[in-house]
Amino acid sequence: MSDFRGLLETFDNQYPERDYKIEIVAPEFTSVCPKTGQPDYGTITLTYTPRGKCIELKSYKFYLQSYRNEGIFYENVTNTIIDDLVAVVQPQWMKVEAAFSARGGITETVTVQHTSMM
Amino acid sequence: MSDFRGLLETFDNQYPERDYKIEIVAPEFTSVCPKTGQPDYGTITLTYTPRGKCIELKSYKFYLQSYRNEGIFYENVTNTIIDDLVAVVQPQWMKVEAAFSARGGITETVTVQHTSMM
Amino acid sequence: MSDFRGLLETFDNQYPERDYKIEIVAPEFTSVCPKTGQPDYGTITLTYTPRGKCIELKSYKFYLQSYRNEGIFYENVTNTIIDDLVAVVQPQWMKVEAAFSARGGITETVTVQHTSMM
Amino acid sequence: MSDFRGLLETFDNQYPERDYKIEIVAPEFTSVCPKTGQPDYGTITLTYTPRGKCIELKSYKFYLQSYRNEGIFYENVTNTIIDDLVAVVQPQWMKVEAAFSARGGITETVTVQHTSMM
Amino acid sequence: MSDFRGLLETFDNQYPERDYKIEIVAPEFTSVCPKTGQPDYGTITLTYTPRGKCIELKSYKFYLQSYRNEGIFYENVTNTIIDDLVAVVQPQWMKVEAAFSARGGITETVTVQHTSMM
Amino acid sequence: MSDFRGLLETFDNQYPERDYKIEIVAPEFTSVCPKTGQPDYGTITLTYTPRGKCIELKSYKFYLQSYRNEGIFYENVTNTIIDDLVAVVQPQWMKVEAAFSARGGITETVTVQHTSMM
Amino acid sequence: MSDFRGLLETFDNQYPERDYKIEIVAPEFTSVCPKTGQPDYGTITLTYTPRGKCIELKSYKFYLQSYRNEGIFYENVTNTIIDDLVAVVQPQWMKVEAAFSARGGITETVTVQHTSMM
Amino acid sequence: MSDFRGLLETFDNQYPERDYKIEIVAPEFTSVCPKTGQPDYGTITLTYTPRGKCIELKSYKFYLQSYRNEGIFYENVTNTIIDDLVAVVQPQWMKVEAAFSARGGITETVTVQHTSMM
Amino acid sequence: MSDFRGLLETFDNQYPERDYKIEIVAPEFTSVCPKTGQPDYGTITLTYTPRGKCIELKSYKFYLQSYRNEGIFYENVTNTIIDDLVAVVQPQWMKVEAAFSARGGITETVTVQHTSMM
Amino acid sequence: MSDFRGLLETFDNQYPERDYKIEIVAPEFTSVCPKTGQPDYGTITLTYTPRGKCIELKSYKFYLQSYRNEGIFYENVTNTIIDDLVAVVQPQWMKVEAAFSARGGITETVTVQHTSMM
Repeated sequence: MSDFRGLLETFDNQYPERDYKIEIVAPEFTSVCPKTGQPDYGTITLTYTPRGKCIELKSYKFYLQSYRNEGIFYENVTNTIIDDLVAVVQPQWMKVEAAFSARGGITETVTVQHTSMM
Repeated sequence: MSDFRGLLETFDNQYPERDYKIEIVAPEFTSVCPKTGQPDYGTITLTYTPRGKCIELKSYKFYLQSYRNEGIFYENVTNTIIDDLVAVVQPQWMKVEAAFSARGGITETVTVQHTSMM
Repeated sequence: MSDFRGLLETFDNQYPERDYKIEIVAPEFTSVCPKTGQPDYGTITLTYTPRGKCIELKSYKFYLQSYRNEGIFYENVTNTIIDDLVAVVQPQWMKVEAAFSARGGITETVTVQHTSMM
Repeated sequence: MSDFRGLLETFDNQYPERDYKIEIVAPEFTSVCPKTGQPDYGTITLTYTPRGKCIELKSYKFYLQSYRNEGIFYENVTNTIIDDLVAVVQPQWMKVEAAFSARGGITETVTVQHTSMM
Repeated sequence: MSDFRGLLETFDNQYPERDYKIEIVAPEFTSVCPKTGQPDYGTITLTYTPRGKCIELKSYKFYLQSYRNEGIFYENVTNTIIDDLVAVVQPQWMKVEAAFSARGGITETVTVQHTSMM
Repeated sequence: MSDFRGLLETFDNQYPERDYKIEIVAPEFTSVCPKTGQPDYGTITLTYTPRGKCIELKSYKFYLQSYRNEGIFYENVTNTIIDDLVAVVQPQWMKVEAAFSARGGITETVTVQHTSMM
Repeated sequence: MSDFRGLLETFDNQYPERDYKIEIVAPEFTSVCPKTGQPDYGTITLTYTPRGKCIELKSYKFYLQSYRNEGIFYENVTNTIIDDLVAVVQPQWMKVEAAFSARGGITETVTVQHTSMM
Repeated sequence: MSDFRGLLETFDNQYPERDYKIEIVAPEFTSVCPKTGQPDYGTITLTYTPRGKCIELKSYKFYLQSYRNEGIFYENVTNTIIDDLVAVVQPQWMKVEAAFSARGGITETVTVQHTSMM
Repeated sequence: MSDFRGLLETFDNQYPERDYKIEIVAPEFTSVCPKTGQPDYGTITLTYTPRGKCIELKSYKFYLQSYRNEGIFYENVTNTIIDDLVAVVQPQWMKVEAAFSARGGITETVTVQHTSMM
Repeated sequence: MSDFRGLLETFDNQYPERDYKIEIVAPEFTSVCPKTGQPDYGTITLTYTPRGKCIELKSYKFYLQSYRNEGIFYENVTNTIIDDLVAVVQPQWMKVEAAFSARGGITETVTVQHTSMM
C-alpha cells in the first residue's frame, strides 16, 4: 500500500450489471531509481472491468504524479499501483502494465493482474 | 436510452441465414465533458453480426453527430450508444469500442459488448 | 449469384490431400453506390483452403473488375462475391473481407465466411 | 521433390530434448511465372521445431536461390519447399509461408504446415 | 552452462504469492560467428514469471556483454542463455527469444521456453 | 482540353490581395489504360495560389470521376487536368501531381506545373 | 475579423531582441459546413516569430473552440484566424496551416502567411 | 552502353513545350555480384523531364529484367542504366537512384544525374 | 541565466579547425507549469558546431534533470537553456528545439538559435 | 589517423568524369566508451562523390569492425573515420554521419564533412 492511495477517487458505475472493459493509458509516468537516484520514465496501462465503482480519471492522474520524486523499483511500483487500485475500485478483474524506457540500452515491462484471467 | 435513438434507421438484411460480421469506424465523434464543459474527441468502432436488420450508414452518422453538444461521461456515452443500437438493430451480438483522445496526457478506451462472447 | 460468375476460372490443386491456406488481397476494388450513384472504393481480401481446385488469379482479377460500374450495397457485394467463389472453387472453408474507404468520415468492413470456423 | 533438395545441409541439434522454435525469414526469393515468363518476387518465412537436426543457414540460402530461373506456380513452389525441408530436417512440426509481391494490383500468400498444429 | 553464469545476480521478489510477468528487451546483443569470425547482432527478449527471485538488471546487462567476443551459433547461444537464467532465477516459467540481423539477406529468430506453456 | 472541363465550377476568392496556398488531395482517381483496357488507379494532388477564383470542391470531385471509363495515358491525363484547371481558375500558379499505383511491379508519378516556380 | 477575437490573450515576450520560432499544433478543430450543415474536422498549425507579445495557450484553445458551431468555408476560416492572431500578437511573421479531414474522399489544406517569407 | 539498350522504346511527348517531371520506381531490380556470384537486389528510381520523347513503361520493365543474370557492380549498373536512357530518351535532365539491399549488414545507394542540376 | 549553469561541463574539441555538427536528443525532459503546478513533458534537441569546447554528455543530462521541479514557461525554459549552453560552450552556432507534449489537445514547439543561420 | 587505415581498399572509378553520389549505411557499428568501458552502438552513414577511386565495400566493413574493442569518444571516432577515408579515397567531397544509440535516455549524432558543401 502506497502513501498516495487516499488520492484515488471513484464514481458510481451506471451499468453494474454489464461486463464491460475500461482501458486507461498514462504515457508520462516518472519516478526515481532507488539505487542511483536517476529519474525513470514509463507508460502505465490500466485495464479493468468495473463492479460498483469506476476510477475517477483526474484523481488517478494526480495519484500517478505522486510517484514523481519517489525512489522505487520497477517490479514494486507496478505491484503497488494495482494493490491501491484494487482496494479502492474493487473491480471484477484488473491488469496494470508498466513499460519503462531504455536504461543502458535495455527496456523492461512489468505486467500484474488481479485475477487468474490473463 | 438517448434522445437521439429515433434517428437510427435500418434496412433488411438480405442474408439473414448467414453469420457475417460488419464493422463501422467513425473517427470524428465529439461530445462535451459534463464537469468542465470542454469538448471531448474520440473514435467509435461498432462491430456486429446482424439478424434481420442492418444499420443504415447515413442515419448512424447523423445519430453520432447528435452528441456534438451533449455533456456526457465516457463510460455512459459508450453504454448508451450500444443500448440504442441493440434496441433498433436487434443483432446476434454487438460490440462498441470508444477510444477518447488524450486529456491531461491520459487516454481512455471503453469497450461494451451485448452478449458474453468477447 | 452475380452476372459475372462465369468469368471465374480454376486450376487443379496439386496437393489436395494437404490442408493449406491461400490468401489473395485485391486493394483496387471499385463499385457504385446504388443510392447516390457515387463510386465506392475498397480492398477485397480472400482467404481459403482448397479441396480439388484453386482460383485462377487473372480470372479473379477480371471478375472483380466487372463490378466497376455496378450499383450495389457493401453488405450485398461481399455476400455475392463469396457465393460466386464457393460455387466455383468448392473450398474446405473460405472467408471474404471487404474494407471500404471512408464516406462521410466513416469506414465500413464486411466479413463473410463459408463455414463456422472464424 | 525439387531438383535442388540435395543442396540442403543440416547440423546436429544440441538440445534435442527441448521443444524450441526457429524462424528464418528470406525476403529476396525470386522465381519465374510459368505462363508469362515474367519474374515473381516474394518473402519465404520458415518456422519449425527441430528434432535431431537443424537446417544449415547458408545451404538453405543457396537452395532458395536455385529457383531464380525456374518456372513454377505460387501454390506449387510453397508445397515443394516444405516437402524438401521436411524430408531433410525431419522436424516435429514445420510451417512455410510464401508472400508474393503484387501482380496486376493483387498479392497472394500461400501457407503450408507439416502437422495439424496451425 | 556458460562461463559467464556467475555474473548473474538476483534480488528477492517482494510479491512471491502473485503470478506476474516481467519482460526485458536487450536490443544490442553481439557475438561472433564460430565459422566465419564475423560479428553477429541481435535482440534478446527475456520474459518470465518469478518465484522467489528476480533477475538484477545491471548484472544481466554485463552477462550479455560477455558474449561480445565469443564464437557461438544462434541456436546454442539462445539455449545457453535460458539455461543460465533458469538455474539462477528458478522462475515459474521463462522464455528467451533471440532475433538476429540479416546475413546474406536472411534473418533468424530462435525462441526457447522453460515450461510447456508457449 | 478534356470533354469534362464544363463540369468545373468556381467561387469568388474572398482574399484576392493575399498570396495563400490551397492543396487538395484526391486519392481515389481511376481511369483506363488505352492499350490494355485495364483500369489504372492513382492519387491526384492539386496545389495552387488563387487570384480571383477558387475551385469548388464538389464540382472538382465530379470532374475527376468523369475519367472513370476514359482510356488515357498517365502523362496525358496529368497535363489535361492542369490545362482544364488553369483555364477555369486562372491561378497565380498551380501544380498537379498524379501518382499511379504499381503496374508490373512499377509505379509512376507525373508532376506538371503552370509557372516556372517548382 | 471574427466575433471571437476578444477571447485571445497575450503575455509579454521575455526575449524580444531574439528571432525565435513558436509552433502550436491544435489537432481537434471543428466547425460546420455552411452549405450542408455537416461538421468539418481539421488540424490548425500556427507558427510565428514574436515581437513584443506571445499568444497565451489557454485563451487560444478557447478561441478555436468558438468555431465549434459556426458555419464557415475552409478558405475563409483560415484567413480569419490569421487576421485575428496578427491583430492581437503583432508578430514579425506568422503562418497558419489548416488541414481538413476527408469529405467525399478528398482532403483540403489551406496555408496563409502574414509576410512574404514562405 | 549495355547489350540491352535496344529493348528500350519511346513514345512522343504530347506536351514538349512544358517542363514537367516523370518519376518511375522499380522496386524489384536484381542482378548478380561479379565477384561472388551471389544475387543482388535493389530499387531503381528514375526521374526525368522529357523533351520530345517519353520512355515506354513496359519496354523499360523488360530492359531492367535483362540484368537478372548479369554480373555487374553497383556503381557500374547505375551509370550504365542512365547512359542507355539518356541516349534513347534525350531528356532535359535525368536522375537514376539505385538503392541496394543489405549485404553483410551494409546497404549502398548510388545516385547519378545527367545534368548538373541535382 | 539559470541556477543550474554551473552543472554544465565541457571537454576540449580535438578538431577545432573543422566545421562539424553535433546533435543531442533528450526525450525525457520534464518541468512544472508555473500557473497550474502540473508537470510538463518534452523533448529537447540541441544542435551545434563547436569551436574550442564540446559539451560533456553526462553533465548535460544532470543539467536538464535540474528542471524537474522548476515552475517555468515553455518559451522561457528554451531561451534559458540556450543562454546557459552558449555561455559555457561558446559554439560557432547553436540551436535548441523544445517540443512539449499535448496539454488540452494542443502541442507547442519552441525553437531558438544563437546566430542568424536558421 | 587510426591504426586500421591500412585495411581500407579501393577500386578504380569507371566514370571519373561524372559527378555522382555514393551512400553507404552501416547500422551495426560498435566501439567502447573510454571512460566507462561500456559498449557503444551506432549507425555510420558515409556519403561521397568519387574522383579516381571508390571505396571497396568489404574492406570498409572490416575497417569498421576494427573499432569493436577500441575505447574512443563519439566526436573523435567520427572525425577519425572521415580522415582515414579521405586519405585513401581522395573524393571530391565526403560526409560521415555517426548516430549513436541512447545512453541515459539521450542520443547523439555527429556529422563531419570534408569540404564546405553541407
